Amino acid sequence: MPELRKDPIIGRWVIISTERAKRPSDLTIAQSKSHGGFCPLCPGNEDRTPPEVFSVREDNSAPDTSGWKLRVVPNKFPALVTEGELNKRGEGIYDKMNGVGAHEVIIETPNHDANASTLGVNDFMQVMLAYQQRLIELKQDKRFRYISIFKNYGEVAGASLEHPHSQLIALPVVPKRAVEKLDGSQAYYAYKERCVFCDILDQELSDGRRIVHENDEFVAYEPFASRFPFETCILPKKHISSFEETDEYLFEPMSEALSTVLKKINKSLGFPPYNYMLHSSPFNKNVSEFYHWHIEIIPRLTKVAGFEWGSGFYINPTPPEQAAQYLRETSID
Amino acid sequence: MPELRKDPIIGRWVIISTERAKRPSDLTIAQSKSHGGFCPLCPGNEDRTPPEVFSVREDNSAPDTSGWKLRVVPNKFPALVTEGELNKRGEGIYDKMNGVGAHEVIIETPNHDANASTLGVNDFMQVMLAYQQRLIELKQDKRFRYISIFKNYGEVAGASLEHPHSQLIALPVVPKRAVEKLDGSQAYYAYKERCVFCDILDQELSDGRRIVHENDEFVAYEPFASRFPFETCILPKKHISSFEETDEYLFEPMSEALSTVLKKINKSLGFPPYNYMLHSSPFNKNVSEFYHWHIEIIPRLTKVAGFEWGSGFYINPTPPEQAAQYLRETSID
Repeated sequence: MPELRKDPIIGRWVIISTERAKRPSDLTIAQSKSHGGFCPLCPGNEDRTPPEVFSVREDNSAPDTSGWKLRVVPNKFPALVTEGELNKRGEGIYDKMNGVGAHEVIIETPNHDANASTLGVNDFMQVMLAYQQRLIELKQDKRFRYISIFKNYGEVAGASLEHPHSQLIALPVVPKRAVEKLDGSQAYYAYKERCVFCDILDQELSDGRRIVHENDEFVAYEPFASRFPFETCILPKKHISSFEETDEYLFEPMSEALSTVLKKINKSLGFPPYNYMLHSSPFNKNVSEFYHWHIEIIPRLTKVAGFEWGSGFYINPTPPEQAAQYLRETSID
Repeated sequence: MPELRKDPIIGRWVIISTERAKRPSDLTIAQSKSHGGFCPLCPGNEDRTPPEVFSVREDNSAPDTSGWKLRVVPNKFPALVTEGELNKRGEGIYDKMNGVGAHEVIIETPNHDANASTLGVNDFMQVMLAYQQRLIELKQDKRFRYISIFKNYGEVAGASLEHPHSQLIALPVVPKRAVEKLDGSQAYYAYKERCVFCDILDQELSDGRRIVHENDEFVAYEPFASRFPFETCILPKKHISSFEETDEYLFEPMSEALSTVLKKINKSLGFPPYNYMLHSSPFNKNVSEFYHWHIEIIPRLTKVAGFEWGSGFYINPTPPEQAAQYLRETSID
């Protein structure tokens, strides 16, 4: 069983895979898998994934057969295992627990060759609604405190399969980066009695220089202190802390915003590798006053080197104002 | 002038380059520079770098001529500029200041083709002593609060030049990752009245499973909660918080430890790209009781993807106990 271990100095948890441990010979940078071969996520290969936990099937076809428009399946090589207790324990000064959690793959479309530029707003909506459904269901499991939802597109961004998919990992602890955002927004709220994300939205909308795209309900902007060129954040205009509590009518404008930003990034940067991450509330704490869910998009254009790893400081060669202008002016029609 | 900007939610500072801003066309992942051509760091090309600020010259040759064994020069394309005041100011809810700092390149040897496996302990010592000299000198500048010293080896790890070199960036703020380590070790000290690094050393030495190498004065081990396969930490056995206060007699065992670990990593992993970072005390705070300088080495074998960026959680496929055993058993004679 994998282990969750905590760094004794800064409190960061990591997942140590104990069973499929990699020997040095398995760890080569050129881990590229041969593409163009067999795809376990394609229709017709449903028996090559673990049984689906959710699907969209307009033709009422049976689970784990073809006919689906979207499928969610457990990851065949999960980072965490679903069965078992946490069994929190010490080892001298160190803390650890069993690697219990859920690791699922959201297969976004049956079309192997689709990408953000070929998918429509309805396809994005289907994916967002699937995220919400899985969040609602997994939240019932009282062992879990946080769910990380993310997409890796392109090999440089960590994708090991070409077929359009995103992933979800349910964790028994709130991860460090979420704790930082929660603590920071709570401190701001304690001082101002306002949500820091709402204040950012107000300032960005009245300033305008960092806005990439806007519709009635969502704003996409380049953060003032962007770490990376073309880093983009998408926020609902209304204050909503938990993605799973988002009203259904918001899914269309949310999908329009995400789809538009990704299409602009693809067009202006030539289909770069990217990651996007959905940041929502943890389950074990009421953060509804001060936290505000959002999507963070990071095109992987620059390398992270010793300075960034050592300091947590980033050098961004493209001012967010210029990146935003460029994306605003990129027509995707 | 570059700008330092602070993230309003989590307090992370970033450097925004405003002058050599990159357009999308400059940002392609395949930024590989043609190797084998002109090298500005090689002997004979001293006029192609800014004037040196430190050098080791056994032949009493003149500055900025050949004859050196090691040179330190300002980076020709610095992330921060040395002249000017910080001019801290706000922009609505945001905080920023001028991008004032120092960015230097430590040219470790005149030999373009050298690497950690061909350099001797004396060569490493020369580099470590140069780090110390620059720290001592730059500490006099009261605008600076922290100095990040790091090495990028290999293109994947961020190196843009082949010639053996490391870098130094002096910062007017203490970077986030340093603050986390300082806060964590201070909290531990407040509770235990002991240095957390000293306690880790004790436990690792008595346990033994994660030890990679040990000499009279230094220990190299794989951290219990390693984020990456073969991540290695080197600690002085004596409690010393600031690298610049390290006694000269410790430089030989320190260099022996670093040299041994890098040679073992090169041999067992086939000269992987890697980063190493020297973590020492900030200048603006007395942390001598609870902080303990150390070197962190990260071979860049796995990809950082959406889960890691979004959560700060890492999935390590190689348990540190196995990595340590493998490196221990790798003979470099």
